[in-house]
Amino acid sequence: MLDIIEARVLKGFRDFLPEAELERRLLVATLETAFRSFGFVPIDTPALEYAEILLGKGGGETEKQVYRFMDHGGRDVALRFDLTVPFARFMAEHRAELALPFKRYHIAKVWRGENTQRGRYREFTQCDFDIVGTETAAADFEILLMMRASLRAINVGDVSIRLSHRGVFNQFLRRLGLPAKSVEILRTVDKLAKIGREETLSLLSAIGGSSAAEEILAFIEPKMSYESTLAAMRDAVGGSTPETDRLELLRSFMIDAGVADVFVLDPSITRGLDYYTGIVYETFLDALPEIGSVCSGGRYDDLAGLYSKERLPGVGASIGLDRLIAALEVLNRSERKTGSSMLAIACLDEKCSGKYQALAAAFRSNDIVCEVFSEPKKPGQQFALAERKGASWILLAGNEDLELGTFTLRELATRENREGLNVQQALTLIKDNK
Amino acid sequence: MLDIIEARVLKGFRDFLPEAELERRLLVATLETAFRSFGFVPIDTPALEYAEILLGKGGGETEKQVYRFMDHGGRDVALRFDLTVPFARFMAEHRAELALPFKRYHIAKVWRGENTQRGRYREFTQCDFDIVGTETAAADFEILLMMRASLRAINVGDVSIRLSHRGVFNQFLRRLGLPAKSVEILRTVDKLAKIGREETLSLLSAIGGSSAAEEILAFIEPKMSYESTLAAMRDAVGGSTPETDRLELLRSFMIDAGVADVFVLDPSITRGLDYYTGIVYETFLDALPEIGSVCSGGRYDDLAGLYSKERLPGVGASIGLDRLIAALEVLNRSERKTGSSMLAIACLDEKCSGKYQALAAAFRSNDIVCEVFSEPKKPGQQFALAERKGASWILLAGNEDLELGTFTLRELATRENREGLNVQQALTLIKDNK
Repeated sequence: MLDIIEARVLKGFRDFLPEAELERRLLVATLETAFRSFGFVPIDTPALEYAEILLGKGGGETEKQVYRFMDHGGRDVALRFDLTVPFARFMAEHRAELALPFKRYHIAKVWRGENTQRGRYREFTQCDFDIVGTETAAADFEILLMMRASLRAINVGDVSIRLSHRGVFNQFLRRLGLPAKSVEILRTVDKLAKIGREETLSLLSAIGGSSAAEEILAFIEPKMSYESTLAAMRDAVGGSTPETDRLELLRSFMIDAGVADVFVLDPSITRGLDYYTGIVYETFLDALPEIGSVCSGGRYDDLAGLYSKERLPGVGASIGLDRLIAALEVLNRSERKTGSSMLAIACLDEKCSGKYQALAAAFRSNDIVCEVFSEPKKPGQQFALAERKGASWILLAGNEDLELGTFTLRELATRENREGLNVQQALTLIKDNK
Repeated sequence: MLDIIEARVLKGFRDFLPEAELERRLLVATLETAFRSFGFVPIDTPALEYAEILLGKGGGETEKQVYRFMDHGGRDVALRFDLTVPFARFMAEHRAELALPFKRYHIAKVWRGENTQRGRYREFTQCDFDIVGTETAAADFEILLMMRASLRAINVGDVSIRLSHRGVFNQFLRRLGLPAKSVEILRTVDKLAKIGREETLSLLSAIGGSSAAEEILAFIEPKMSYESTLAAMRDAVGGSTPETDRLELLRSFMIDAGVADVFVLDPSITRGLDYYTGIVYETFLDALPEIGSVCSGGRYDDLAGLYSKERLPGVGASIGLDRLIAALEVLNRSERKTGSSMLAIACLDEKCSGKYQALAAAFRSNDIVCEVFSEPKKPGQQFALAERKGASWILLAGNEDLELGTFTLRELATRENREGLNVQQALTLIKDNK
């Protein structure tokens, strides 16, 4: 006899059992409906690409994490580690086939051989939406609206969408005489929520002196309202600039669209070392801010510069699907079901399986998810299986009942039986109790 | 300046542009609805697994095609090349968490470094559905019904589902005294449709002699009806056996369920070298039989024997999604749209973007997919963009109109403008013309 191979998945990888996978698919479908309602369209790209294309920018951290190998044809290939780089390659390749501005979403798995100690996975789903080929504030605003609409469509409760402008931050650093230190400063400021005010202050002092450090901390502190924060930002950069004007225009859009309440101007939002150049966004759940941003993004100058000479400015955001699902669980808002059947049809006589399926077809054509059992086990076992599969009702019929066209319907929760029903009566009963 | 990296995908891999991806997602959603209506639930497994697990059976052809490499931790890993092997591993690992019989579907990408000359892709989607943990004919029948229901849900026209029984074929070969040659004979018979009667006869003669070859060809020829074919099969194996009895029972299920017409008993269906042991199925489009089987499957004795000592019999089928999409195109039945918007809102004044979005929200809450343009281009350019994005209508409003709460709606196909409308009037107009 052959040895048994131990059944196990790789570290950092996961199986999705039905209840988790159902929840995930429901969430994705909800997000897609929201994206589609804004006229966004889906794309997909290969999981595997030339390593040269995926690693063009040659980020040191990224390179260490990426799954890269030689294929059968001796090509240097890698699994995608995000959806942004493939999208840049996609736009450079298909520019002529697409009308700009192009509004796309992409929901797909990505792979990173990260250290799994921090609870991170090596295979996870990203969910990106972008508008490319436009520099308008209207596009920045539309992404903000979509962040709001897609999170409202999911049952996560109230959210705060915090935004700022990378350009204003850079102007402020120039005024402080620290433009050369912007990378270090951005990196430090981005950690504020994690490491606290004191440590941030001491790190910033080490970079630019204690006076500048105090000024930076004062700058990034949100004030009472969007308007007062914007006024303080304007002061900090010495008056109105095109960048502060855009923040003002965005505010007028929010007011005109009647959505001013969820948006907070927060100069501490910088998105660290990301490639953003304009507006930047982060989103926090009011009920669970400590889980971090569940939807982030911003405006960039040029998406596909590595692969094309045509400049493609754009703006977009990404939803952290795994983080959202974790949040829904913590908040007890996830609606997990083991199965998806509403009605099970018991197998009292295996020879009647054709007739059971004919009955099932009648229920299915009335939008009742209906499962037919195939094994003639004891009724009690079939009731237990039906409950485990999430059914609310089980239909019991032997050959004689089927000849008469009637059956018994048992409500599993109450253990109550209704005898002598026909399909129409059963449908009424099931729909009334939904 | 940096050199430009050529934007291209690997040979055998594809980008999905919006119209193709929309069609694909629509098709998957339709199939999922059909699967769910039978009480089937989705699962997912990792794209990457231990090579030892995926290649346990060590198929020579498979091993050459699989994408296999060493990961950062020195693990021997591979990309899944089908959904059957991961499902076997999944069942062995999660058996205790699942109620049997377990009915699952799995729609996901798989990777094979195949020769791409035959128009095959190296990345493609598989769509499998199985019932495991039962040996009943009722389960065989349910898979047949699901094949029928899922293909009917898609707009592919009439189909013929052809079935046979591996066990009956083996009994027949034993009667001919050729049980040791069954692998070769199965392989040859499986090619009948491709190579024709004459070549099959000559290949079979070389294996078992010309008299046996004639008998095999006579055996695999379908007769006038399911019943007469079954009678001939019964004769060929010397009377009723449990296997012919099952074919008879399945026929009674088909009649009882009122679906007898689409099923054909066809002893030439053997599924070649696949691991099936009982009933086997293939499905052909009546309008395009030459494209081959679009949905195939069968019954197997033991799914997870490599990973578990518990025997798990089951039955299932797999839909060839890429082949189906190709067929829909040939048949001109695919419903491709460039975009998904019903209504575009023109940008006549960028400062009104907040008000345009407020209008859009009113349409979206009435289930109208509505796209807001962000660039104040010339009206003609905006009309052209709206048409390219698939919109039927474009809404035109300047700041003064918006103050009055009215706007112009232009029907793009007729170039007809309706002026002075409010949201309610526009909704009526759009819904009446849908």
